[in-house]
Amino acid sequence: MVIIIRTDLNMGKGKIASQAAHAAVSLYESALKSSNPHLKSWLLSGQPKVILKVDSYNVLISVYDGAKLNNLNACVIRDAGLTQIEAGALTAVGIGPGKEEDIDKLTKTLKLL
Amino acid sequence: MVIIIRTDLNMGKGKIASQAAHAAVSLYESALKSSNPHLKSWLLSGQPKVILKVDSYNVLISVYDGAKLNNLNACVIRDAGLTQIEAGALTAVGIGPGKEEDIDKLTKTLKLL
Repeated sequence: MVIIIRTDLNMGKGKIASQAAHAAVSLYESALKSSNPHLKSWLLSGQPKVILKVDSYNVLISVYDGAKLNNLNACVIRDAGLTQIEAGALTAVGIGPGKEEDIDKLTKTLKLL
Repeated sequence: MVIIIRTDLNMGKGKIASQAAHAAVSLYESALKSSNPHLKSWLLSGQPKVILKVDSYNVLISVYDGAKLNNLNACVIRDAGLTQIEAGALTAVGIGPGKEEDIDKLTKTLKLL
């Protein structure tokens, strides 16, 4: 599971943490509902989560589009905007669980947050 | 759902985000398994997650003990320690979903991360 966070919104640590938590629960929920074949091994291997960063909306949405095109489990997170940032702003994208090589293809150029 | 992060470990933003994501999935998983009566309303209200901070192991574990004593859904997160911090270190505690007043009793003195 990979979670990608936008840095250009200048979110604080707590806001970033809540967006990552939203993404992780959203991916887990959709993986359960779709009987994702990678879910069991992900659960058994300590539910690994890698947190990456991008510096723009455009890069974030292009990674998400790539994930959907490749039939990966993926989600977008939009903030309710009660604090810090504009309501509805896209803050994060989550991808997985899935084959590591499939996710890597989309995210290998991105840096760790 | 409240997630409490230790600040005394000096974790980076990405590490904090992954600990919060671990806690959120863990709470969601246990809430599903235990048919937590607060799960549905939490899901329908946008799955709110509040990220708080403590500055020591002792405070963190006392909040967790309080949650268990009050029969709240709660989890501890320990880091695999592959990066940044000692393996097995307790990094975060999650509580909820539950009655807001029950969680507030335990966490109202803690500050937002």
